[in-house]
Amino acid sequence: MGGAHRTPAFQAMNPGMAVAVLAQDDGTFVFDCTAITEYIDASIDGPSLTGKTPKERALIHTMQRRAESFVMDAVGTCFHQTTDGFGPAIEGDQCEGWGMRQKGIAANGMQYFDELLAKPPSVGGEHFPMADVARFMGLGFADVARVDVPASCANLADRRHRGARPGVTTVLGD
Amino acid sequence: MGGAHRTPAFQAMNPGMAVAVLAQDDGTFVFDCTAITEYIDASIDGPSLTGKTPKERALIHTMQRRAESFVMDAVGTCFHQTTDGFGPAIEGDQCEGWGMRQKGIAANGMQYFDELLAKPPSVGGEHFPMADVARFMGLGFADVARVDVPASCANLADRRHRGARPGVTTVLGD
Repeated sequence: MGGAHRTPAFQAMNPGMAVAVLAQDDGTFVFDCTAITEYIDASIDGPSLTGKTPKERALIHTMQRRAESFVMDAVGTCFHQTTDGFGPAIEGDQCEGWGMRQKGIAANGMQYFDELLAKPPSVGGEHFPMADVARFMGLGFADVARVDVPASCANLADRRHRGARPGVTTVLGD
Repeated sequence: MGGAHRTPAFQAMNPGMAVAVLAQDDGTFVFDCTAITEYIDASIDGPSLTGKTPKERALIHTMQRRAESFVMDAVGTCFHQTTDGFGPAIEGDQCEGWGMRQKGIAANGMQYFDELLAKPPSVGGEHFPMADVARFMGLGFADVARVDVPASCANLADRRHRGARPGVTTVLGD
C-alpha cells in the first residue's frame, strides 16, 4: 500500500514490480505465483499442486491460465482501472474502458467455472489444485473490485463460501 | 483470419477462443502454449524446454511470464487495440488507450531483455528455452503491431535477426 513494490530495490528483484517474489539463497528471485508453485512442487514431497503425470500437468496449467485470465487477472484489472484502487500515487493514469471490458470477461469466466463445478469432480475443478487456488483468490478480490458474482452462479457462490478446498479452509478459515 | 476460433465448435474446445489448442485422444483439450509445452516436455524424452531441476523450472517459468507480459502479450495487445488487427469483425470495439500503454510496456520490456542478453549466458537468456521462444515470437509480431524495437537494443536486434536459438533457425530459417 505504501508503494514498496515500486522502489528501485524491489525493481532489482522483480522488474515487473509486482508480488509475489520468492528470494532464493543464491541471490536469484522467482516470480510469479505459477513459477513459485512450480518451485515448491518440485522441491518438496507431498501432494502436488501442479500435477505429476503429463496429462495432469497439461490440464492443470490449462485451468491455471483460465483461472487467471477469466477471473483473477480480470478482477484485478477492474480493481486497478475502475475503482480508486491503491490511490492515485500507485494507480497513475487509469483506463476505465479496458477495466469495464474486463468486468464482462470476469462475468463470463465466473459462468464458465460455475458450470464446470456442477460437473463430476473428475471433469470439474476439484482436480486442478493450482488453478483452484487462483480462481478462489480471484473471487476473494471480486468484492473490493466491485465485480459481482452473477446471481446464476450458485455452484461458484457455494464453493466460495465453503472454501475452495480443505487447504484453503485450513489457512483462511471457513 | 476467417474467425474460425470464434465458432461454437472451437469455443467448446477452448472457451477463451484463442489458439494454440492441443487435442488429446481422450477428448480433452490443452491450452495455452505454456500448458502444451509442459505436456510435450513431460511426455517426450530429450532436451527440456521447461527445466528439470526445481531451480531451472522456477527460473524458466519466471522468464516465461516476463517474456509474455513484457513482450509477447504487450505486442499482441498493441496489434489488436491500436491497428486494424484482423479487421472489425474480429477485433470489435478497440481500446486504443490500453493498447498505447502496452506499447510503453513493450519498449521497457525490450530494454530489459536487451540488458539480460548482454550478460553471460548462465545469467542471461540462453538457458531459459521456453521463455526464449516466447520472447522471440513476441519480437516477430512487433513489426505488424507497429511496435518499434528501441534503437538502443542492439543485443535484442542481433538475436532477433540471427534467430533466438538453433531450433528456431531450423524451423523458421535464419
